[in-house]
Amino acid sequence: MVHVTLLGGGNLANHLASVFLEAEGIILSQIYNRTFQNIEHLRNRVEITDDLSNLKPVDIYILAVSDEAISRLSLQLKHLNGLLVHTSGAMDMDTLQPCKRIGVFYPLQTFTKSKKVDFNLVPICIEAQETKDLFLLETMANCISKQVYKIDSLQRNKLHVAAVFVNNFVNYLYTIGEDICVENQIPFEILQPLILETAKKINDIPPALAQTGPAMRNDTKTFEIHKQSLNANQTEIYTLLTKAILKNR
Amino acid sequence: MVHVTLLGGGNLANHLASVFLEAEGIILSQIYNRTFQNIEHLRNRVEITDDLSNLKPVDIYILAVSDEAISRLSLQLKHLNGLLVHTSGAMDMDTLQPCKRIGVFYPLQTFTKSKKVDFNLVPICIEAQETKDLFLLETMANCISKQVYKIDSLQRNKLHVAAVFVNNFVNYLYTIGEDICVENQIPFEILQPLILETAKKINDIPPALAQTGPAMRNDTKTFEIHKQSLNANQTEIYTLLTKAILKNR
Repeated sequence: MVHVTLLGGGNLANHLASVFLEAEGIILSQIYNRTFQNIEHLRNRVEITDDLSNLKPVDIYILAVSDEAISRLSLQLKHLNGLLVHTSGAMDMDTLQPCKRIGVFYPLQTFTKSKKVDFNLVPICIEAQETKDLFLLETMANCISKQVYKIDSLQRNKLHVAAVFVNNFVNYLYTIGEDICVENQIPFEILQPLILETAKKINDIPPALAQTGPAMRNDTKTFEIHKQSLNANQTEIYTLLTKAILKNR
Repeated sequence: MVHVTLLGGGNLANHLASVFLEAEGIILSQIYNRTFQNIEHLRNRVEITDDLSNLKPVDIYILAVSDEAISRLSLQLKHLNGLLVHTSGAMDMDTLQPCKRIGVFYPLQTFTKSKKVDFNLVPICIEAQETKDLFLLETMANCISKQVYKIDSLQRNKLHVAAVFVNNFVNYLYTIGEDICVENQIPFEILQPLILETAKKINDIPPALAQTGPAMRNDTKTFEIHKQSLNANQTEIYTLLTKAILKNR
């Protein structure tokens, strides 16, 4: 049994609380948050606290807090003997430096408050300073996910950039798609099966081989017709991505 | 019963042939292609021909050919009495002008040769010059899909641009994600659950509300760290999309 304490009250902390409470092999000891507000609903299922001096000894303390809070919070936790890990894609493990035993537990997924997540399918990237701590983290991660990867801080930083492209930027392109639909009285739902299939396709075919469309055909006539429909911002993005696809053929 | 003839030997023609052969309410009369090569495998299931003068009278002729071929082929079909439709997102209905009864039957999905498609979930955009022909098209479309939309040529043109953003450009961003992974010895499969969840999310939440990431937070420190990892092309795209998200907040 791995004894775990969660620190944080946001989306990720709440998703992790749910999955830890149901996981075999993990005992969720406490949840800490600055205020009770976001963890109040868990009071009947686990001990909650808003006081760091109340923290009990456990195997792993998980900081599921914002990037900005990690360093500040870790300064207050340097007396702990357990393994301290953060859950950030962007921050180095060394951000936790003042503490004795440090590591990272980074679930690479987008979490929505109201939507339940199947953690079995969430890739978890782990890292630790000491081999025995990495093994401990791996044991815990294996209790909740079938996809556990050893990823160092440099690799995780690159993964985080890649995630910005395939998640944040992709979602922004969906926004443009919706804008064009709304402007032309077309229900956006027409595009949703295409969006889903585009995402599924790359499980079977590498994206470079799945590339299609006017840019792949260097179909300059279509470029001109398309640009007539777009505003300045959309045209700039259309032009740059078309140029990039053309160069990449 | 709607009697249909397919013209074309590409991906879409082959997918349509499969679904028409199984659909209730549709009789696939013939498949025409310039060469037998790509339709040969259907010989045992339907009459195939490489000679336009062999075409029998049917209710609907479907041109599932490339955009460039539509106009040329329609010139050779102006003697037909049936309804002639093309399947292109980019071309106006009027491209078929020399023919008597014209329309459009545009399935909005990405088709891969080897991958079976559930047509029930494929949105089909229909258009016709005459009301009775629109009704005929609708009857046929309803036999294979639960999502049939009346979309005129102008709207379809806009939809096609939107599809370039949410399909072609999104896939290109996946390519960048894979490139970053490969360069850093990270398995690309780590990003696939995130990619799928990002696509699924917009069924529940409009993409504008689902937007997250460093650009939404105007997190300039992260922008600088990320850009250190990117090549010139990736930096240009990162900068432009970040600027666009910032402006759109």
